[in-house]
Amino acid sequence: MEDKITLSHGSGGHKTSELIAGIFKKNLDNEYFTADDAAVMPAPEGKIAMSTDGFIVSPWKFPGGNIGKLSVCGTVNDIACMGARPLYLTCSYVIEEGFAVSDLEEIAKAMGETARKAGVKIVAGDTKVAGKGQVDGLFITTAGVGVIENEVNLSGAFAKPGDSIIVTGDVGRHGCAILLARDEYGIEADVTSDCAPLADPALAVVSKIPETHVIRDATRGGVGTVLYEICDASDVGIEIVSDDIPVDPAVRGVTGLLGLEPLYLACEGRLVIIVPSEFEDKAIEILSAYEETAGAKIIGRVTDDHKGKVVMKTSIGGMTFLPPPGKELLPRIC
Amino acid sequence: MEDKITLSHGSGGHKTSELIAGIFKKNLDNEYFTADDAAVMPAPEGKIAMSTDGFIVSPWKFPGGNIGKLSVCGTVNDIACMGARPLYLTCSYVIEEGFAVSDLEEIAKAMGETARKAGVKIVAGDTKVAGKGQVDGLFITTAGVGVIENEVNLSGAFAKPGDSIIVTGDVGRHGCAILLARDEYGIEADVTSDCAPLADPALAVVSKIPETHVIRDATRGGVGTVLYEICDASDVGIEIVSDDIPVDPAVRGVTGLLGLEPLYLACEGRLVIIVPSEFEDKAIEILSAYEETAGAKIIGRVTDDHKGKVVMKTSIGGMTFLPPPGKELLPRIC
Repeated sequence: MEDKITLSHGSGGHKTSELIAGIFKKNLDNEYFTADDAAVMPAPEGKIAMSTDGFIVSPWKFPGGNIGKLSVCGTVNDIACMGARPLYLTCSYVIEEGFAVSDLEEIAKAMGETARKAGVKIVAGDTKVAGKGQVDGLFITTAGVGVIENEVNLSGAFAKPGDSIIVTGDVGRHGCAILLARDEYGIEADVTSDCAPLADPALAVVSKIPETHVIRDATRGGVGTVLYEICDASDVGIEIVSDDIPVDPAVRGVTGLLGLEPLYLACEGRLVIIVPSEFEDKAIEILSAYEETAGAKIIGRVTDDHKGKVVMKTSIGGMTFLPPPGKELLPRIC
Repeated sequence: MEDKITLSHGSGGHKTSELIAGIFKKNLDNEYFTADDAAVMPAPEGKIAMSTDGFIVSPWKFPGGNIGKLSVCGTVNDIACMGARPLYLTCSYVIEEGFAVSDLEEIAKAMGETARKAGVKIVAGDTKVAGKGQVDGLFITTAGVGVIENEVNLSGAFAKPGDSIIVTGDVGRHGCAILLARDEYGIEADVTSDCAPLADPALAVVSKIPETHVIRDATRGGVGTVLYEICDASDVGIEIVSDDIPVDPAVRGVTGLLGLEPLYLACEGRLVIIVPSEFEDKAIEILSAYEETAGAKIIGRVTDDHKGKVVMKTSIGGMTFLPPPGKELLPRIC
């Protein structure tokens, strides 16, 4: 195969077939992976969940992952947030003419490894090539189908006053890792993206605590944006305790230097889970058993007061409103 | 709402919500369309088909459609080619900063109309915004799930010597329409893309002729590429009759001027259907009942001879090999 992607690789002809066989089939293969127009699989039973996510992250590689890993985690986690077990994914690539084939292989390899780890099968794909300058490197879109195994009733609109709010690990790592990888601020720090598939811990929580009210993944906009969305959708207020919010010291350092709020930096491996307070210990115990959610912490609770607002209790006992989500902090984060 | 898309529309914050409500929900809404991380629907029974397709067509608007219509037809038709009824679609947008909101609305409107016409529901979506110059206008990726209602056994590998080959209408219209819309050749001609959803006629054929061997949609690479792929996959030869291939006179004129082969121009509303010859009349009769496939014609048959090759019988009785698919004729066609 050539070293670089050419327009012929997107023609749908034999160069496309060569690319699919040499890069995609090699790394993503499974019993349903298809060369036909669509993949055919047994239908799940009961209810399904379906989601899609586009990935345009720049740079495409960062400490802790790359766009291939990210594009599997994003859709797997969206499906898991509805209490569904992810089963099948599709992936669609738009690649810039001249993109290195070796980089593409690195991306497809990460995609395959992450899919196997997440227990999901990539069944169908598509490849388009755009001319030089018509796309910045490579964009990937994944879509997925999952099956709802246990009857659940989850929504951002179901938070109730008194509920406990959990985040499943330290916040803002993905956003901070991308920011540093862009190398625009001259800051060096050892920050790795939290990017990870979270279906196993999410489904463990909903199967053992069917009373769970909300599961959301805190991607673009970070935990802060998710909390404000929940306030709106559930018509409640939220109180969080500043000292209880887990933040990696290196992330704390970088955000301190730049005057950023870690709660508004993207995560790609963190869930916000809201349960009735009597289940908070059980939830933490369940999450602690999984590597990706071992750092789960209760960060606050849902209240009847100051509806539509997120209030932060500071370490010296004061109360401040978390500023509402504003404009794009960092474009092309995922 | 502003006139132009800004980076904030891709932040995942309230500008994104505004865009989703004002453009996408307004045009695509149905009982499953979700603001949560994933849509939840009843699972189909039996077997499902799943496919994805990315659309980067330039220009985004052309006679007969736009990228929104195209992005629904492409995935719907891929699913129908496996004999499955399309049920649910997802759509993911990557939009260039500065793209006109009114154009986006025109695209979403076409998407909604085409989905309703195709009987498919758009259940989930995603919106990303890339900076000026990082994406050329707008790319859309759709993915879909369909249900296999009748036991079928379709594949490009199932063509048998003696089978009849049908195309469901005149060939090359989409490719020709895009070529003219680019206005690079100074040719004016009245050519409209054939872009259309084809699930109804495709499923009518497989339900009434379960013996159908192959259904493929002739998109990138056109009918010629599909025929060569079938030769390869089924280990057969194909003979087509030049005079029997339906080509619109305007398309014939343009391709004549430019020295192009209409069989290699993309279609977006044409199927190649291969059935045992005893079912050819029945297939044509079924297809004739649908507006989109009213121009269906038998163009040739599958043979044991010259395996791996497509032979064209010319009007003066000669035989030539259709040149095998070559390099990208026209990039960003779909």
